[in-house]
Amino acid sequence: MVRVAIDVLLKDEILDPQGQAIERALPQLGFEDVREVRVGKHVELTLPAGDDLAERVEAMADQLLANPVIESFTYRVLDEDHDRAR
Amino acid sequence: MVRVAIDVLLKDEILDPQGQAIERALPQLGFEDVREVRVGKHVELTLPAGDDLAERVEAMADQLLANPVIESFTYRVLDEDHDRAR
Repeated sequence: MVRVAIDVLLKDEILDPQGQAIERALPQLGFEDVREVRVGKHVELTLPAGDDLAERVEAMADQLLANPVIESFTYRVLDEDHDRAR
Repeated sequence: MVRVAIDVLLKDEILDPQGQAIERALPQLGFEDVREVRVGKHVELTLPAGDDLAERVEAMADQLLANPVIESFTYRVLDEDHDRAR
């Protein structure tokens, strides 16, 4: 089994009100000069290894995790051999 | 400037209903054997470089981005020299 992380963000051209809210709140907490804050979804899941791993992860993200019209996603393998690691 | 990604997830012992909903929906879409789905927040932001980068990012996450009682976070640097890369 493989542990994969999928990060979903609004596309650059789409307004991100949650990111803007965080950006505005940070100076009041003493964090100056923080810019371009974007907020999205982080999904971690465990699935069977295989040559078609990339294909399966991309299909899952496209069909269920991200809205391809307004969001884009990236993914990465966190743990190649998740079962043995536990 | 440095581009940083911060991932916030509910702690392992906290129930994650959104992750469970995704886990239940996946077989109906043809994705079998996907387990341990956890859903959280993905934040990307740009901030000034410096020796205290880790300290600043951790303070931001603790104070604004994550609820330390029920959530944990990880972070990573995406781009060490974000201004020049643009």
